[in-house]
Amino acid sequence: MHPLLKKKGFIIDIDGVVGRSTEPIEEGVRGVLKLLDAGKKIVFVSNNSTRSRRILLERLKSFGIPVSEKDIISATHATASFIAKEKRKAKVFTTGEAGLQEELVNAGLTLVDYQDAEYLVVGSNRNLDYNLMTKALRCCLKGVRYIATNPDRIFPSDDGPTPGTGLIIGALYWMTGRMPDVVIGKPSKVIMLEALERLGLGAEDVVVVGDQIEVDVVAGKGIGASTLLVLTGVDKKESLEKASTFPDYVLESLDSLFM
Amino acid sequence: MHPLLKKKGFIIDIDGVVGRSTEPIEEGVRGVLKLLDAGKKIVFVSNNSTRSRRILLERLKSFGIPVSEKDIISATHATASFIAKEKRKAKVFTTGEAGLQEELVNAGLTLVDYQDAEYLVVGSNRNLDYNLMTKALRCCLKGVRYIATNPDRIFPSDDGPTPGTGLIIGALYWMTGRMPDVVIGKPSKVIMLEALERLGLGAEDVVVVGDQIEVDVVAGKGIGASTLLVLTGVDKKESLEKASTFPDYVLESLDSLFM
Repeated sequence: MHPLLKKKGFIIDIDGVVGRSTEPIEEGVRGVLKLLDAGKKIVFVSNNSTRSRRILLERLKSFGIPVSEKDIISATHATASFIAKEKRKAKVFTTGEAGLQEELVNAGLTLVDYQDAEYLVVGSNRNLDYNLMTKALRCCLKGVRYIATNPDRIFPSDDGPTPGTGLIIGALYWMTGRMPDVVIGKPSKVIMLEALERLGLGAEDVVVVGDQIEVDVVAGKGIGASTLLVLTGVDKKESLEKASTFPDYVLESLDSLFM
Repeated sequence: MHPLLKKKGFIIDIDGVVGRSTEPIEEGVRGVLKLLDAGKKIVFVSNNSTRSRRILLERLKSFGIPVSEKDIISATHATASFIAKEKRKAKVFTTGEAGLQEELVNAGLTLVDYQDAEYLVVGSNRNLDYNLMTKALRCCLKGVRYIATNPDRIFPSDDGPTPGTGLIIGALYWMTGRMPDVVIGKPSKVIMLEALERLGLGAEDVVVVGDQIEVDVVAGKGIGASTLLVLTGVDKKESLEKASTFPDYVLESLDSLFM
């Protein structure tokens, strides 16, 4: 039996581990089903900044994984929860898409234009334009509290690399000198501590599984959990050569835990 | 007589010194006319990355300043000249607007999509969108030679601050770790040395005039010219308190040279 199967809980990344966008990764899905059969507690943690938790839930169900909303933490949902805890009904200007907006509204926050904002919430947006960037710039210059859903630089897509939330973070940093006051998504502790709380376990009982060293492995190390890199996504074996952090284990897929 | 009037040549910024967009700054225009009357050589140097030299020429003429194309160096024109000197007929992908594109084509370069590019030319674009940023990202990742028209972070407009070329430079830096191989516009020496050449004078005989310490004054110091900050544009007297560089002289306007 693989030594990681002694652990009680698994924090599992979605993209690159159990699916690629709307397509399942069969070995990843098989691995999840076997973990559930073995009685493991699982929470899915996604840095996705454009999809609501509801959409991710539908996606996992379509892969054949039996889950409910409480088993999923998305950067969109975690961002909304974080702000609602800091300031109920806060007025928020966001660069984000409908998925992020949905979560912000569901958390009782009010979406406003940049002039009235108490928070600037940066998330990737495939419809971004000069006008949106101008509003984000002005909101940032106002000095309001600045939250980033995730720090992702580049996102792999079917036809090549595409910009992540980092496009906006980098642009704002260069123009204003400001970095986000808080980053919610991996490798930030904010989303990882919420995942531990959801599992009801301490980090010593938990494995963090993902396909990106600088995102998932760093996030796992950050809370002191065991870490497993799977090679079904972005990082390949060669990535380890230039890595600054090393996973405890590297496997071809999540299903390889059972081989 | 003001001591700077002993100098033979003047390198003069356009925006914030003689005009604000299409509106003249009367004191600035008066100053230019008196300098011309006094037999001074003048070259206008603009970091503008969206206007061709032709447009800037029309603008200065509309202000009542008698100029021809050879008296104007725009970042757009200087960028095109620089690349044409390095590689005749080079294939260029640019993020820039029509004004920059016009200069690139006039210099004999070929505009292509990112897949075929030998050069990535970054200039501000008020029509930028996610698609354009994706192309710029992919072009940058290809490792082709990367030229920025200017390093401007924020541009003042009638209704508030708006993003400059720095939006794209910052975004690309954050996503890829790459900075431009060459920056053409002020405070870069590239455009300033072209201005000296145009005047046919050494820096010791020249005054650099502008409204921004970090752009114009730094550019002037960079070539060893005298520097004059005028307060008709972006920087005010308070800006001097947090400045890292100091102009040789500070005046209310260009016309104040004659008071």
